[in-house]
Amino acid sequence: MQEALTIVKIGGNVINNKPVLAKVLQDFKNLKEKKILIHGGGKKASELMKRMGMQPTMIAGRRVTDAATLEIVTMVYAGLINKNIVAQLQAIDCDAIGMSGADLNTLQSHKRIVKEIDYGWVGDIDKVNGLAISRLLNAQFTPVFCAITHDKKGQLLNTNADSIAAHIAVGMSAYFSTRLILCFEKDGVLSDPEDDSSVVPSISYQEFQNHKATGVISAGMIPKMEGAFFARQHGVQNVYIAGIHALENTIVKGTELCL
Amino acid sequence: MQEALTIVKIGGNVINNKPVLAKVLQDFKNLKEKKILIHGGGKKASELMKRMGMQPTMIAGRRVTDAATLEIVTMVYAGLINKNIVAQLQAIDCDAIGMSGADLNTLQSHKRIVKEIDYGWVGDIDKVNGLAISRLLNAQFTPVFCAITHDKKGQLLNTNADSIAAHIAVGMSAYFSTRLILCFEKDGVLSDPEDDSSVVPSISYQEFQNHKATGVISAGMIPKMEGAFFARQHGVQNVYIAGIHALENTIVKGTELCL
Repeated sequence: MQEALTIVKIGGNVINNKPVLAKVLQDFKNLKEKKILIHGGGKKASELMKRMGMQPTMIAGRRVTDAATLEIVTMVYAGLINKNIVAQLQAIDCDAIGMSGADLNTLQSHKRIVKEIDYGWVGDIDKVNGLAISRLLNAQFTPVFCAITHDKKGQLLNTNADSIAAHIAVGMSAYFSTRLILCFEKDGVLSDPEDDSSVVPSISYQEFQNHKATGVISAGMIPKMEGAFFARQHGVQNVYIAGIHALENTIVKGTELCL
Repeated sequence: MQEALTIVKIGGNVINNKPVLAKVLQDFKNLKEKKILIHGGGKKASELMKRMGMQPTMIAGRRVTDAATLEIVTMVYAGLINKNIVAQLQAIDCDAIGMSGADLNTLQSHKRIVKEIDYGWVGDIDKVNGLAISRLLNAQFTPVFCAITHDKKGQLLNTNADSIAAHIAVGMSAYFSTRLILCFEKDGVLSDPEDDSSVVPSISYQEFQNHKATGVISAGMIPKMEGAFFARQHGVQNVYIAGIHALENTIVKGTELCL
């Protein structure tokens, strides 16, 4: 039997709220098994851009990343947010190490091919270096990944944090019995988008397709759930869409994705 | 006999010049022994502050770090500069991993005690986690440190890169036969400050004291050389003050510090 690994992705609703972040990091630290944290940080990046007189450009929820924007997201994700999370985890005796995909060549990407839209310096992941990540985990270190990858030719690339989480989970499932928990604004997938208490305990890929067709699952959720199902279909044992209470008492609350 | 470790510190004159940086990183990569890179980045931090309408405050060459300045240096040092250097090293097959002192609790500091001057969120190093750094080196990883540390209570601290280099060198000399190379604007210590070719091959602590007294070694060099002599006096086998040609052909050119 493979050893257990839990991968948790947190987004802006956690990162931008100090007491919520402190609580989620404590819950994460309390997990007894090996673990990896992945964080976004888009709201803070947009704030900094506006302070610098730059205008963030988003298309279908994805950031268009010109050279100046790449500098901003590298600073905010890999610098400000990543190092503050690492320092907070170290303060509660979680032996965290901050990572981008460039570090140890853990996440190798290519610049997204231009079709209708030119997203600029955005990376689509080709390879996860599961061996390097395993070596960190086996040294009892806890990797904390930001949403920056590279192309192994010296170019950093802005990469969606949900995609990073899904790809790392798939890559690590060769080495560990892996579960992936994507935390977001709600406590799970809702059967009624207007009722936050209508969290469903599980959802199959077929149900997801039906909910997409009827509009119960809406625009922003679709790429997140596609990525999550991709992970579930490629070797990740358990995948959850959950909220900030996901890790309380080390029992996952949220919606489990089924094949 | 202990295994060899070379620790190289680069500053703004290297970082801010793309072809020079590429050359120094290639020379660094060519070193056959285990190695650690440490970088500053103060000029880029000051540039970003000015773009954001902030005014950098320096006292005796040291940055006064209020909360907003700490955010800037964390973004620039740990994010922008660190990840770009890591990506460039990975592109030439050097298996780099970017680090701050918070990562793996490698550099624990305390906020500098206020005497005549309040430097703000500036850290003075108390402890180097040589064991954690050794584990990275023994996994054949190459750590790349930026000039940010933490207090192990969740607070990041701005810390002089020369001091980090000296402390890491001392800490690692318990595990490795360690040499420290501090790269700066000149090719070494000059016997005539007006003549760049007057590099002396070696300098003793007594000679350093004499040069300080006569003014041959001037203000900015004094803390750098104090730190370098501290390292030499505390177990580091070889310490050099050198320039951008320091690592060419893997033979160090510059000024060696003697006891």
